[in-house]
Amino acid sequence: MSELPSKLLSQAVESLSALPTIGKKSALRLALYLIKTDKEYTRELVSSLTALVENIRRCEQCNNLSDDRLCSICTDPRRSSKMVCVVESFRDVLAIEDTNRYQGQYHVLGGVISPLDGIGPDDLGLDRLFDRVERAQISEVILALSPTMDGETTNFYIHKKLKAYDVTVSALARGVSYGGELQYADELTLGHSIIARLPYEVT
Amino acid sequence: MSELPSKLLSQAVESLSALPTIGKKSALRLALYLIKTDKEYTRELVSSLTALVENIRRCEQCNNLSDDRLCSICTDPRRSSKMVCVVESFRDVLAIEDTNRYQGQYHVLGGVISPLDGIGPDDLGLDRLFDRVERAQISEVILALSPTMDGETTNFYIHKKLKAYDVTVSALARGVSYGGELQYADELTLGHSIIARLPYEVT
Repeated sequence: MSELPSKLLSQAVESLSALPTIGKKSALRLALYLIKTDKEYTRELVSSLTALVENIRRCEQCNNLSDDRLCSICTDPRRSSKMVCVVESFRDVLAIEDTNRYQGQYHVLGGVISPLDGIGPDDLGLDRLFDRVERAQISEVILALSPTMDGETTNFYIHKKLKAYDVTVSALARGVSYGGELQYADELTLGHSIIARLPYEVT
Repeated sequence: MSELPSKLLSQAVESLSALPTIGKKSALRLALYLIKTDKEYTRELVSSLTALVENIRRCEQCNNLSDDRLCSICTDPRRSSKMVCVVESFRDVLAIEDTNRYQGQYHVLGGVISPLDGIGPDDLGLDRLFDRVERAQISEVILALSPTMDGETTNFYIHKKLKAYDVTVSALARGVSYGGELQYADELTLGHSIIARLPYEVT
């Protein structure tokens, strides 16, 4: 793509193409769309993006993305405040919310313990989780970190620390996927799902 | 995707997903990127988009997108002001500029005559082109509209009207593409390229 014959346009393309997955060509298409469409749309877009980055913050209780001091999940009276699901990121919160199967609260670590990257328990503010368990008399902590080496290490660390508190610690069930073909399941998962077999239930 | 636990985020996703080719999932990814990255970037993005839609306009001479009264092509002293290439859109200007083979000016119609869509010569402001040809003593008009039915109709209309002026009217050469395999060329193009064959030149 040669130089654009408009500085306004080339600056907009420059900015837009810094976004992930947006190349120069897509950026140009988006910029031309903005020019063609009603100005009011761009004003709305710009104001919603500004409001987002200037005002979004972390929930003081669970570290989730939040519009206010406490997030909409922590302040929802229909949700149990005695159950805390520990996840790595906001995207994991969304994934669990999408299942519509969980009615407790969360604790978003923002990462996992990773000795190789120099991330230790203090960097994740794990003390805030332990304080919360004690202060709010949490009855169950569900560990829902990714089943990677670092995720398992973090699960283990939290589990060990929580022994000092009067709280049940559980973890996501592991097993073969719904809809997955058995022959493609990995050995570890398949092996675990045989050992951890359950009484047959008609669902 | 269920409801997002943040109004700020869901408004930003709403706005972003109104952009062409950006679905809800991409919009969420972009919004989360903006949250994670330096605020300064979003400020820059927002200000370049605002500057674009509020200040971009049409060149008073050629109707091209422009930052000022006249566009950067019309005001470029190295370009011939006696040669005008008639195109449908700004994207066509970019395509021709990318070839680095044209050093004249443009006239951007913003559309083509389309009886089915109720677009006639007046809607394209063709009088401005004819005025310009006379006033600026243009020596050559190059018709570069798309080879569609409507494009050809428009080419024909302009060509007929320009007979009243002392100006050469030319059109883009038609023929088989460079790098294209002969067996895949369409009959019309291949037939034309035999009739309009040229003396062999070593290039």
